[in-house]
Amino acid sequence: MAKKVLKFGGTSVGSIDRILHASKIISQEHKKGNKIIAVVSAMAGKTNELIEFSKTISQNFNKRELDVLLSSGEQVTSALLAGALCKVGIKAKSWLNWQIPILTEGEYNNSRIVNMHVEKIDKFLNLNGVAVIPGYQGISSEGDITTIGRGGSDATAVAIAKIFNADTCEIYTDVDGVYSTDPNKIPVAKKIDKITYEEMLELSSLGAKVMQSSAVQTAMMYSIPLQVRSTFTNRPGTKIFNNENIDYRKVVTGVAYSKDDAKITLQGVDDKPGIAAEIFEPFSKNNINVDMVIQNVSSDGKTTDLTFTIKREDLQRTLEIIKSNNKIKSKEISYKNNVSKISIVGAGMVTTPGVTYKMFKALADEKINILAISTSEIKISVIIEEMNTIKAIKKLHTIFDLD
Amino acid sequence: MAKKVLKFGGTSVGSIDRILHASKIISQEHKKGNKIIAVVSAMAGKTNELIEFSKTISQNFNKRELDVLLSSGEQVTSALLAGALCKVGIKAKSWLNWQIPILTEGEYNNSRIVNMHVEKIDKFLNLNGVAVIPGYQGISSEGDITTIGRGGSDATAVAIAKIFNADTCEIYTDVDGVYSTDPNKIPVAKKIDKITYEEMLELSSLGAKVMQSSAVQTAMMYSIPLQVRSTFTNRPGTKIFNNENIDYRKVVTGVAYSKDDAKITLQGVDDKPGIAAEIFEPFSKNNINVDMVIQNVSSDGKTTDLTFTIKREDLQRTLEIIKSNNKIKSKEISYKNNVSKISIVGAGMVTTPGVTYKMFKALADEKINILAISTSEIKISVIIEEMNTIKAIKKLHTIFDLD
Repeated sequence: MAKKVLKFGGTSVGSIDRILHASKIISQEHKKGNKIIAVVSAMAGKTNELIEFSKTISQNFNKRELDVLLSSGEQVTSALLAGALCKVGIKAKSWLNWQIPILTEGEYNNSRIVNMHVEKIDKFLNLNGVAVIPGYQGISSEGDITTIGRGGSDATAVAIAKIFNADTCEIYTDVDGVYSTDPNKIPVAKKIDKITYEEMLELSSLGAKVMQSSAVQTAMMYSIPLQVRSTFTNRPGTKIFNNENIDYRKVVTGVAYSKDDAKITLQGVDDKPGIAAEIFEPFSKNNINVDMVIQNVSSDGKTTDLTFTIKREDLQRTLEIIKSNNKIKSKEISYKNNVSKISIVGAGMVTTPGVTYKMFKALADEKINILAISTSEIKISVIIEEMNTIKAIKKLHTIFDLD
Repeated sequence: MAKKVLKFGGTSVGSIDRILHASKIISQEHKKGNKIIAVVSAMAGKTNELIEFSKTISQNFNKRELDVLLSSGEQVTSALLAGALCKVGIKAKSWLNWQIPILTEGEYNNSRIVNMHVEKIDKFLNLNGVAVIPGYQGISSEGDITTIGRGGSDATAVAIAKIFNADTCEIYTDVDGVYSTDPNKIPVAKKIDKITYEEMLELSSLGAKVMQSSAVQTAMMYSIPLQVRSTFTNRPGTKIFNNENIDYRKVVTGVAYSKDDAKITLQGVDDKPGIAAEIFEPFSKNNINVDMVIQNVSSDGKTTDLTFTIKREDLQRTLEIIKSNNKIKSKEISYKNNVSKISIVGAGMVTTPGVTYKMFKALADEKINILAISTSEIKISVIIEEMNTIKAIKKLHTIFDLD
């Protein structure tokens, strides 16, 4: 007997049939004697429809009222799912954000869960009840409804798993689990059975579609075992754990990529403390997200070359900011707007020598030029020309035994 | 400067355009210096859609969860309307049932408002704010969402007008006001400018489409002036008052009718105390609604004839119940399933002699046979053959100067 949080995403509750199907999954888990808290998203498409409504009224719709509006989507699903469970004789009850309550901090549209009351629901679970909770929302200390950002139902599920001390948190979604690379692009992509939190985060360009990154981070912080699985099959999905739970036979777990990147290089920047901060400060003020940053000491030892990547759509703005920044004295600014980032990810990498060489050799064999390199303990990323993206992923997927 | 409750029905907030239009009406009233509480229904069709969802899951959907589900409809409208008001620079805020709170008693799906807290909202109104409140809902003493029956947004509006001590309660809807008879059937029907609560209630077969009867009753009990008006025109609509506010030139205010009735007569029933109770008791147990009841002492002085009307769809069940009721000793049971009830309504009737005669004479002139008669202080109702309904309404409308 375990205490389980089962989270159902938008497509998993996207129609009445699917809500009935989700109620069957819950019912089976409940019959096994498990204590179940179900967390639900809005029905697929609902949140977008409500956002569309708000935008028709104003592109700058009042943020407080937007949260009142959007939170209704998960409320509807919660009531329907609880009703579906009642129909098959399960004692089920929806608990809305203010009924629990789920307390949040921060701004409207982008708050975070800080606490929730457990006594009433724990008592209900002990009496064999199933609690159904709308994801993505809470209430502020002022008693206003607040939402926690798109994909926030994952964060709600993980926060509930943590605060209710659940044994596991299962994310039911429309994919089988996490794949070794994008299965739509690379047909030999394979479902990963077990993965660490860190790998999952590094694979975020794939994983983002599967699960919200900040929810994975929270699960990592509190060692909450996650399982991502399909609502529509009985297959076990992908388990997300700490390192110690994973027996590595493969050094590399997956190959991730991000498209639509641009690369900027500043050559001959003064090599003095604080220069990077001076360069990047105006970017963050302008909401420009910098991804990879690589800095090399230049040959003269007095200046440095700085390369970084950004989203391609931000390229023009970024170049203008650099040009108007008096603190940057650079001999040359160069950029490339058709690049992509390819990463190999694997927690076993740190203990296996030669992975870096193997990767670079493989790309060289394919005559793919590497424009920049960045490594971490469980990831090696390279910037290449965008046209080589698929070729690079395929090659790396094969040589690291992922096919 | 007045404190006003403005209630917008489902069609008045049935699209984003209409919500924007409603926000304009509120904005104009607010500019005049009035303190405004807006009460809103769900967008037209929304409640039915949600009920349809629940019925697809179960014809006997859990009542608690049904209220959680349905209450989301008005929540959406409240947020959209508050957002639309914010957009034009008005300080507006939605206040949900639990945020006020609006306290209810009674069953799920059919509760009634018993109280609400006024301080926070009154303070907000005094700071020039507009409060937007979802109709049709409240919370129980256990903290569950409860709804107050279809059309309940009218009841919410009147309850708010009472508890907040508002000067007036305006019901914005898709009709111009209350008509002297059904304008769809009788083209010469005229909009009534002023009407008493009692007349409005008696005209309920017309009025039901315009405003929920129990809301009119509450308004009558607390002398809250109502005004029913169209959201789509600037015309003043119908004012609903106490007697003293109305100057009667017309004896009859309107002609109402109800269709799909059936009439049953029990002849030769024992004329002893309690007999009517014994006959009607099993009807109420079986949810059969008895409308008109007419009892005459029969010629022998020992037995009585009892006539009553019911909805036609209940006729067969009612006849079976009578036959299986051992307490009824009746010489003869007769019935007629194609009848309708025609009523003339007018608060001035009580002080005007000859109205009854004038009505019966008019029907006789049209060769319409009267099957049963029942009168109250402000209403005379007759049962006639259904095929004569329109002819009777037209004639009565004309002779009582309503055309």
